[in-house]
Amino acid sequence: MKLYDGGRAPNPRRVRIFLAEKGIEIPMVQIDLGALQQKSPEISALNPLMRVPILEFDDGSALCETVAICRYFEEIQPDPPLMGLDARDRADVEMWNRRMELNLSAAIAAVARHGNKAMAVLEPVQVPEWAEFNRQRIPDILKWLDGALAGRDYIAGPRYTIADITALCALDFMKVTKIPMGEENVNLLRWHRTVSERPSARA
Amino acid sequence: MKLYDGGRAPNPRRVRIFLAEKGIEIPMVQIDLGALQQKSPEISALNPLMRVPILEFDDGSALCETVAICRYFEEIQPDPPLMGLDARDRADVEMWNRRMELNLSAAIAAVARHGNKAMAVLEPVQVPEWAEFNRQRIPDILKWLDGALAGRDYIAGPRYTIADITALCALDFMKVTKIPMGEENVNLLRWHRTVSERPSARA
Repeated sequence: MKLYDGGRAPNPRRVRIFLAEKGIEIPMVQIDLGALQQKSPEISALNPLMRVPILEFDDGSALCETVAICRYFEEIQPDPPLMGLDARDRADVEMWNRRMELNLSAAIAAVARHGNKAMAVLEPVQVPEWAEFNRQRIPDILKWLDGALAGRDYIAGPRYTIADITALCALDFMKVTKIPMGEENVNLLRWHRTVSERPSARA
Repeated sequence: MKLYDGGRAPNPRRVRIFLAEKGIEIPMVQIDLGALQQKSPEISALNPLMRVPILEFDDGSALCETVAICRYFEEIQPDPPLMGLDARDRADVEMWNRRMELNLSAAIAAVARHGNKAMAVLEPVQVPEWAEFNRQRIPDILKWLDGALAGRDYIAGPRYTIADITALCALDFMKVTKIPMGEENVNLLRWHRTVSERPSARA
């Protein structure tokens, strides 16, 4: 199998970090998103939605969507567990990963894709009002996440999970929006330092 | 345990259909979203994001996020399987469920919540430009889904899964936007008839 990767974009990075934490190495094909290589006939045939990451199997079939790719590797190599240990823990990790996606990551992506003229290549019809709506929401989301991290090491509890990967990639991508993490969010800053120091963060 | 339910809203309905397919009955507490009961102190204590559905365990702890709740029930009662059979199938179901969420369901929710004045009680700051952006996208999404359903019975393949539940709840909710499913989308209409005829669709 091989992974179609997309450089600095948050979703391809989520899969790279996930694989690094698992110690899995697979061949990667770099897709230049700025040059719209994801819209090539080759990639469109694998994913009609024209997005990466994509995992291509040796039979030519394709698996798309970041968390679906992560789930496949979690299933075939459960150690170290990044998506929970038992029924309740797996559900809790799913909850926290989705909270990071549906709130934090989606809001940051909206500001970046709809509020930044340099992103017009990826988002031809930008809606600046949507960027502004989300820009206003982000400080409250960061404050809520800071509170959630009080007294716990990682986002879903005592162990590093996919929820940490989602949040790390979202917050690092937030740099393009110039929104600060907020000096007052001490739990969030402490967590961010901790997860950034893991070797996987360089993936 | 008990489930905090939210009437006609799509996410609470997803959990009810999932439970009906599993044949699981649990006590439910009705939350009136129009009356903003989800913002009550009782519900905020269970979910600071003030959304339903919420599964409350007997120890008082809470599990939030629709798919996290579904995953919990899939784990404790695997039959009938609604989230895949093995590593690859579970990943494929995850892919299709996410495609239904991130494309179809999110676009419909954006039109409903930001383009309908009656929804201002749930979305106090509406962004009509965002509703319009998504309204323009939906016919292409429906056409793509129609193509994906050609030659297959259900969205993720030969078996009914959580991806069908997500799509059914999204498309039924689309009625509030007055966007039609499109007579030309014959595969989509055939699929919609089939899944709507299941007893679980009345949940």
